Amino acid sequence: MTQINRRIVLASRPQGAVTPDNFKLEQAPLAELAEGQFRVRNRYLSIDPYMRGRMNDTKSYAAPQALGDVMIGAAVSEVVESKHRGFTAGDNVTGIFGWQDYATSDGVGVRKIDDALVPLTAYLGVAGMPGVTAWYGLNKIIAPRAGQTVVVSAASGAVGSVVGQLAKLAGCRAVGIAGGPEKCRYVVEAFGFDACVDYKAGNLYQDLKAATPDGVDGYFENVGGEALDATLSRMNPFGRIAVCGMIAGYDGQPVPIKQPSIILTMRLLVQGFIVTEHLDLWPEALGTLATLVAQKKLRYRESIVEGLERAPDALIGLLQGKNFGKQLVKIA
Amino acid sequence: MTQINRRIVLASRPQGAVTPDNFKLEQAPLAELAEGQFRVRNRYLSIDPYMRGRMNDTKSYAAPQALGDVMIGAAVSEVVESKHRGFTAGDNVTGIFGWQDYATSDGVGVRKIDDALVPLTAYLGVAGMPGVTAWYGLNKIIAPRAGQTVVVSAASGAVGSVVGQLAKLAGCRAVGIAGGPEKCRYVVEAFGFDACVDYKAGNLYQDLKAATPDGVDGYFENVGGEALDATLSRMNPFGRIAVCGMIAGYDGQPVPIKQPSIILTMRLLVQGFIVTEHLDLWPEALGTLATLVAQKKLRYRESIVEGLERAPDALIGLLQGKNFGKQLVKIA
Repeated sequence: MTQINRRIVLASRPQGAVTPDNFKLEQAPLAELAEGQFRVRNRYLSIDPYMRGRMNDTKSYAAPQALGDVMIGAAVSEVVESKHRGFTAGDNVTGIFGWQDYATSDGVGVRKIDDALVPLTAYLGVAGMPGVTAWYGLNKIIAPRAGQTVVVSAASGAVGSVVGQLAKLAGCRAVGIAGGPEKCRYVVEAFGFDACVDYKAGNLYQDLKAATPDGVDGYFENVGGEALDATLSRMNPFGRIAVCGMIAGYDGQPVPIKQPSIILTMRLLVQGFIVTEHLDLWPEALGTLATLVAQKKLRYRESIVEGLERAPDALIGLLQGKNFGKQLVKIA
Repeated sequence: MTQINRRIVLASRPQGAVTPDNFKLEQAPLAELAEGQFRVRNRYLSIDPYMRGRMNDTKSYAAPQALGDVMIGAAVSEVVESKHRGFTAGDNVTGIFGWQDYATSDGVGVRKIDDALVPLTAYLGVAGMPGVTAWYGLNKIIAPRAGQTVVVSAASGAVGSVVGQLAKLAGCRAVGIAGGPEKCRYVVEAFGFDACVDYKAGNLYQDLKAATPDGVDGYFENVGGEALDATLSRMNPFGRIAVCGMIAGYDGQPVPIKQPSIILTMRLLVQGFIVTEHLDLWPEALGTLATLVAQKKLRYRESIVEGLERAPDALIGLLQGKNFGKQLVKIA
């Protein structure tokens, strides 16, 4: 079976914002499987903010993506051929399979998934890495008590929407920050947040103040910049800030914290984290999240484009805040 | 016994830097003691950076000092008259007695001190609040392991000098940041730090990089601003930053953190703290510190001016970094 694999590689590193010419679509024949390997046909690719960081060649938590290599990323896929005892053709799986039609794996980091109660694509979002990210930051860093106020930026996104819903389930007041009235309305009406502040309305601090009459006890940071400054000014004593992302600064522009003295005066805890460094907690988190999805207690929204060749535009749109919900690329 | 008490009150709030006319020296007769009270003659006043925060009328961890009230502050004092069963004339004590010749107390928060092994003034510094501050931030937030690198700003000061010495006793590399070659030399030669970087030399980041070849695992922040930015850039993954003070911003000027994204990329813990909120740990800390002083394992330096009327200038000098070691005012 000599088939052609289409794949998107990193062609050049971004100078500032990501552009389409940072990527290149290649074709290559599929190699024979070795013993212990299996091949998957990718069906949906996950597009996530962390990918921007991998495209830089700077000191960060992950090694940079090498030029010429297939763009990294998770996918939900179907096993199409196997010389591995643990995987059989027809199995639904999720793993880090990259931006390509087919991937070869030895099974490390691959998880079989079941679409009986949870749709396959949810394993890339609410019941996958983004969901675990929300679960970890909220429960292990913010650790809110009922009645406290939790704020999350990028509230309509794959992570933010889960943070707010889990906060509500914990008895908290959940307040989102999102861009534009449509996203804000959705965050309140579909995800059940108590309020959502539109940072594009130009009145972020005052609007956030109105939405957090009792101050803020926990902040889940996906964005940085103005959202962080505004929320810092609303923090209550002993507040916790989980720093999950600073998408505002991913292109290299400065995003200073203007009043870090609030960390001292309010005795705040600020903790950066990377969810893949806490794999021991994933089974618990994934189990909780899948159950909540199956029970319809956790809702999610997806933004799906079709065609492998559109993955670069999907990432560029995500980084510009143009997506609405979990960004996926359907390729088969 | 109708005596006159001299006292320094807060006359006005600073507009930016503290000036002498923010204070006023008053005189008033001493009132009779009530049952359960005792009177102390203050001997040494402690001058500390936190006092600057109390002079503002802004939301912070402590209620602002009221205009017209005696300036707050700790002192070591002698009981001169007592209607309290627990205190007798001649007792040496330390407490929050304020900037005045005499104070009246009901004993709350007052501790008897013994100068057999530890000099009285040390109870205002290395074996008092500043020492406990260093102990708490180092052991409870930074929690360094032997072989790690700990950096502290304001390294020649009452808190910073203890941080570095405790870090050395824990088997760490201790690196100070201080202002000027004289302070830096003292930090290395007298306090035993491995290195000290002079921020006034104009090359802070490069000099700090040279002094921290293995990066920085723990940072004890007393200053903020440039010191924080430079040290952030040197942090290792999972580093801890104890935020004890941001003296650089106490007058209201902005001291932004330029690259907060490092908190994420290095998965840092940043924790603000106020030592008086952890009183349960003071007995352990004070015992440890007094023992180390008595054993000559913990050294300290004092800067003493004489005369109650010079307390304002002592605070102004401290806030400008002109003191060298623990700042005290001897008044009797």
